[in-house]
Amino acid sequence: MNIKQITFYIGICISIISTCAYSQSKKNTNTKLILSENAAQTIAKEIETNSFLQASFSKVVTNADKALANGIELPIPKDPGGGYTHEKHKKNYTDMYNAALSYRVTKKTEYANYVKDMLLQYADLYPTLSLHPKRKENHPAGKLFWQGLNEAVWLFYTIQAYDLVKSEIKSKERKQIEKKLFNNVVEFISVDSYKTFNKIHNHGTWAVASVGMTGYVLGNKDMVERALKGSKKDGETGFFKQLEDLFSPDGYYSEGPYYQRYAMLPFIVFAEAIEVNQPELKIFEYKNEVLHKAVVTLLQLTNNDGKFYPFNDAIKDKTYLSEELVFATNIAYERYNDKSLLPVIKEQGKVSISDAGLKVAQALASNKVEGYQRSSQLIKDGPNGKQGGIALLRVPSNQEKQVSVLFKFASQGMGHGHFDRLGIIMYDEGREILQDYGAARFLNVEAKEGGRYLPENKTFAKQTIAHNTVTVDGISQFKASVKQASKSSAQLVYANLDNDDVQIVSAIENNAYNVQQQRTISILNIEGYEQPLVLDVFQIKSNQPHQYDLNYNYIGHLMETSFEYNRPQQLTALGEAYGYEHLYNLAQASAANGVSKLTFLNQNKFYTISTLTNKEDNLYLTEMGANDPYFNLRQDRGFIIRKNNTANATYVSVIEPHGNFNPQMETVQNPNSNLEDLELAYQDENYNAVRFTIKNHGTHLFVFSTKNNEKSNNVISINGKNYNWTGKHKLFKL
Amino acid sequence: MNIKQITFYIGICISIISTCAYSQSKKNTNTKLILSENAAQTIAKEIETNSFLQASFSKVVTNADKALANGIELPIPKDPGGGYTHEKHKKNYTDMYNAALSYRVTKKTEYANYVKDMLLQYADLYPTLSLHPKRKENHPAGKLFWQGLNEAVWLFYTIQAYDLVKSEIKSKERKQIEKKLFNNVVEFISVDSYKTFNKIHNHGTWAVASVGMTGYVLGNKDMVERALKGSKKDGETGFFKQLEDLFSPDGYYSEGPYYQRYAMLPFIVFAEAIEVNQPELKIFEYKNEVLHKAVVTLLQLTNNDGKFYPFNDAIKDKTYLSEELVFATNIAYERYNDKSLLPVIKEQGKVSISDAGLKVAQALASNKVEGYQRSSQLIKDGPNGKQGGIALLRVPSNQEKQVSVLFKFASQGMGHGHFDRLGIIMYDEGREILQDYGAARFLNVEAKEGGRYLPENKTFAKQTIAHNTVTVDGISQFKASVKQASKSSAQLVYANLDNDDVQIVSAIENNAYNVQQQRTISILNIEGYEQPLVLDVFQIKSNQPHQYDLNYNYIGHLMETSFEYNRPQQLTALGEAYGYEHLYNLAQASAANGVSKLTFLNQNKFYTISTLTNKEDNLYLTEMGANDPYFNLRQDRGFIIRKNNTANATYVSVIEPHGNFNPQMETVQNPNSNLEDLELAYQDENYNAVRFTIKNHGTHLFVFSTKNNEKSNNVISINGKNYNWTGKHKLFKL
Repeated sequence: MNIKQITFYIGICISIISTCAYSQSKKNTNTKLILSENAAQTIAKEIETNSFLQASFSKVVTNADKALANGIELPIPKDPGGGYTHEKHKKNYTDMYNAALSYRVTKKTEYANYVKDMLLQYADLYPTLSLHPKRKENHPAGKLFWQGLNEAVWLFYTIQAYDLVKSEIKSKERKQIEKKLFNNVVEFISVDSYKTFNKIHNHGTWAVASVGMTGYVLGNKDMVERALKGSKKDGETGFFKQLEDLFSPDGYYSEGPYYQRYAMLPFIVFAEAIEVNQPELKIFEYKNEVLHKAVVTLLQLTNNDGKFYPFNDAIKDKTYLSEELVFATNIAYERYNDKSLLPVIKEQGKVSISDAGLKVAQALASNKVEGYQRSSQLIKDGPNGKQGGIALLRVPSNQEKQVSVLFKFASQGMGHGHFDRLGIIMYDEGREILQDYGAARFLNVEAKEGGRYLPENKTFAKQTIAHNTVTVDGISQFKASVKQASKSSAQLVYANLDNDDVQIVSAIENNAYNVQQQRTISILNIEGYEQPLVLDVFQIKSNQPHQYDLNYNYIGHLMETSFEYNRPQQLTALGEAYGYEHLYNLAQASAANGVSKLTFLNQNKFYTISTLTNKEDNLYLTEMGANDPYFNLRQDRGFIIRKNNTANATYVSVIEPHGNFNPQMETVQNPNSNLEDLELAYQDENYNAVRFTIKNHGTHLFVFSTKNNEKSNNVISINGKNYNWTGKHKLFKL
Repeated sequence: MNIKQITFYIGICISIISTCAYSQSKKNTNTKLILSENAAQTIAKEIETNSFLQASFSKVVTNADKALANGIELPIPKDPGGGYTHEKHKKNYTDMYNAALSYRVTKKTEYANYVKDMLLQYADLYPTLSLHPKRKENHPAGKLFWQGLNEAVWLFYTIQAYDLVKSEIKSKERKQIEKKLFNNVVEFISVDSYKTFNKIHNHGTWAVASVGMTGYVLGNKDMVERALKGSKKDGETGFFKQLEDLFSPDGYYSEGPYYQRYAMLPFIVFAEAIEVNQPELKIFEYKNEVLHKAVVTLLQLTNNDGKFYPFNDAIKDKTYLSEELVFATNIAYERYNDKSLLPVIKEQGKVSISDAGLKVAQALASNKVEGYQRSSQLIKDGPNGKQGGIALLRVPSNQEKQVSVLFKFASQGMGHGHFDRLGIIMYDEGREILQDYGAARFLNVEAKEGGRYLPENKTFAKQTIAHNTVTVDGISQFKASVKQASKSSAQLVYANLDNDDVQIVSAIENNAYNVQQQRTISILNIEGYEQPLVLDVFQIKSNQPHQYDLNYNYIGHLMETSFEYNRPQQLTALGEAYGYEHLYNLAQASAANGVSKLTFLNQNKFYTISTLTNKEDNLYLTEMGANDPYFNLRQDRGFIIRKNNTANATYVSVIEPHGNFNPQMETVQNPNSNLEDLELAYQDENYNAVRFTIKNHGTHLFVFSTKNNEKSNNVISINGKNYNWTGKHKLFKL
């Protein structure tokens, strides 16, 4: 810890002491967390005239009324995720939260009484509980829930509910609730579950946020201090350390967008609580306003349909309309006045009932809000931004409908990371074209392993072959060891994303295998041609011969291939380990020298993958689902280009959207690839040049550097002709 | 031919003569087909104020302007469907049609000149053509197109274009066009292609409609007469005979909705032309207003998302928004004043530029139009309504979102029919739950057999096992012989669709195999229970033991089964013929005595098929795609319940929608089947009784008759207890 940090933490301590002193010095009816009495009164007034407040609050009241009508039930915890008691205790905290919000805005005491009664029942129940019967080995347990994480989420909402109704509860009952319930829950989360509480991980964030907020409400400085600085109060763990280590300077969260979405809620709500109680900590300025960047980056990590890119362990279909993001966008707008967030908030269609939500609702009423825009960008990973990153190539930039490629060269992302270095995902507007499988999991569906991650998540979804990248010798990157993979990250070589005609990103990964890998992804717009082309150059170098498998997990119905293949009568798995055991070998082919093509139809558009092969290569068409005893996997397909027994190799591929298929009008346009030729025209230590011809649109030469040396004058000679350019790359029309 | 018909045809002849006399007696600038000069002038006036006219006509003009800008090209025919010359000649007739409409409304002569110039070029080209080089054996050939059907469609639009611009063309050029082009095309379609022209089939309808309309425009009574009464002018073929034989009294077209949609266009447009030229024929009153019923029934044969039910050879994704239906709904509204059509027309978002379109646009401007409603109904098949039919069970009736089951017990439907008697298709709102595969075809995609029906259409999609019905001894119904199948149809026993609590339809098929089959489909609403239940009782009787396979082609991800199964390491086909060769055997199980259950997730809802089995039965989980060398089939799944070596059998199954899965909110409700018990409690010659229990909603006994005898007092005794009821069925709460 350096001097600066020490001074900072002394500041925290002083401010905690003064806060606590303040909270004990006078009895007041104000609140401590994200909805102040002032805002509640204003909301009550403006509901009539502000449609966002009206829509948002009426849902809250409707749910609260239902809860009151149903009465209170606290079942003895016994079920795993998705089961009755699990879902009931989850519902209880949302019911309390809705009732508490309803009370604060309407001041009707029946809502407060409902919360109070339920809290008193929890105060009786909680001390009688031991660890949950459905807890899992090697996974932090809860008492109300099978896992401790849910316990922290329970506290996160429940302490907010209590904050809002506390002034309506008599002192004796308050003591009962605080002593028997909150102190015990905090003790369980922060002391009994010491390890989780001090983890630099989203589970840790939920724990410290809920305990810290409880500290503010109960006026317990010890809780607040431990939440901010960790159990040892030395800043090596706790909220600040989490902010420091889990977010890159660009606001990228190391577990990826699916978990960032989830973790964003405790980060931003606890930050809001800190700002309210200890404004001198300037939490929203921390790490160069990292909380602002976190929200902005998270929203940019969605595809054109608002869905989070599903890399790492991720459930597809989660969009930025999800509840957690309502809090995040609202608070970020409140604190940073960032109008670029308003289109998303408008799409969300509701606001949080909080000071931030009020401000946002007022802004929506008085601003014209256009569609949300996504731009091409580089997002650095790692606490210092030095652990590679994610590139988003989007054409055209800043539009609502785009062809986009996500290129991943990041760190492992902890336990939820996949072995997917140098992997890509491709979309065309809302449609997945080259997919990331996401997680093998049916969240909360009891029949599917209690809704937890399925075994196939580990045996397939995390493995390299499940991704659009290269698997060497049939073995996943880092032999699928998280520990090994966490020691290093892929690295950016360079990126140029400012130009809609050529966007290019080059990255390397030299630790995943005993080979050197460099992938350069470009999106090229050929003048006058209908669609952008994705050019994918994947170079591998090694001292020893290997087997290389470049996989494209395409989504669509196979239309045709340029190569003949054999379809076996019996389908068997392509391999025995590292995910290959889950792929049926649908067909295989010996490639020819030249271009091998595969065309598929994805909804109403055609796509052709053209890739350079030679006659030693093999091609495989695969389908997921082998060795999947409980049908846990989807039946999606892949196209593997296998280079055998070679030390150095360069894959040169073009992924080409073309034409359209309109079953409504019964018309078909351009069903065939327009790429007439493809050739690696030049390659040396510093440069690659790819020549290709587009039907009726001429022959082009794309040259690009593979190094990050700034050279003002590049020159290569092909067939005696010199090509000169400045900068990293150039697209020549021949 | 009876006296009535003869009188009728004499009427036709007289009216044809008088019409022709009229058309030659004076030169006039009026038109003969569906857009009159009066209507054109009114449209020109009302475009400013009527948004439907504006939207519709602006598309027409935009397309016409594009066509004029591109100039005229008539390539020598050489490509099959989807190829350049094919698509170009298709585009030419739409370009001419759009330009002609533009001329009529705007009176700008450049549009008329464009049509004239193209017609003159066609007049030069056409006489030089012989049969198309890509014609297929055993399929009627064209000259401009690989098949004659396209030739008739070409004439259908081209003659309409000519009708609209004829007054702008000098006499000499008119003669050239009429003599060298239209007479030759008509000769080819009606004389060279005699067989098609005289077919009772949609190809015949296109032929007679285009020739008949040409007759009106050219003032050629012979053409008109042959179109209306067939080449021999005896009424044994031709338009009237087609109307007579192809539509049932309920307006059901024997090839099914996909082809009805397609055939509807020449039927309705030619009828409109007849009405304009020979109103005395009262064509819109013909066969008890069968054209009205045809349009209404066709629209009802769509699912909640507007897609036509894809039974028989059908491309999925076709909706009632398709172009053909715009003409059909417009003319039907014009002639029958049926306001129930307006919601569909409004959804179509445009009107045809015609007298009918004008009337409709005016109606839309002055009527409040609600959502389109679909009702439960029985649609009889066969010219006299005696060849079985289709039942649509919809709950709740007359709503925009429904659980619906289509039950098919119709005639074969000619060459495009499938061997699917007693088959069902199930939907929940817009989603397919139990699918009909539809046709194996990628319309107009050249890479897929030139866009024609794929070989797997015959080897799989038409076969019985591709449908949700019973296959006996592994052989399709009628041994997959269209000829045999066309000799008989399934038959309705009874239907009761008036009540939302119980909808029931029972039908038999005794000719498909040497066994007697009766299926009774009911939708039951249990009071207070969340979702309707589909009860499926399939009885089979025979003198000899057989193998029975009831198949459910479910759409969704398998969640769980109540039975244990074996998954083979290697996937092989389930059989060798009748479509079984295209099914991979993913898993098989020996059933237990009692209820066997399979639960799947379809988007956000769960579905459980519960079926009574005994321990001699086998269960199979299948996937399509075996023996499919070019990946023509989708990879969809099925659940086969096999009863072995038994003469009589009764399948009792419940298909139960339940719960929901919300990945957005991460909530899951009711993922498990609520059907706790299922039993065939009683069965005799006349009655079946099924007992079942719904969790928290009691035990129920559903008794129903298997005969159509009207009995005022039914009684059965189960375990010494008597159950009495009147009518066909009764749902007892026990």
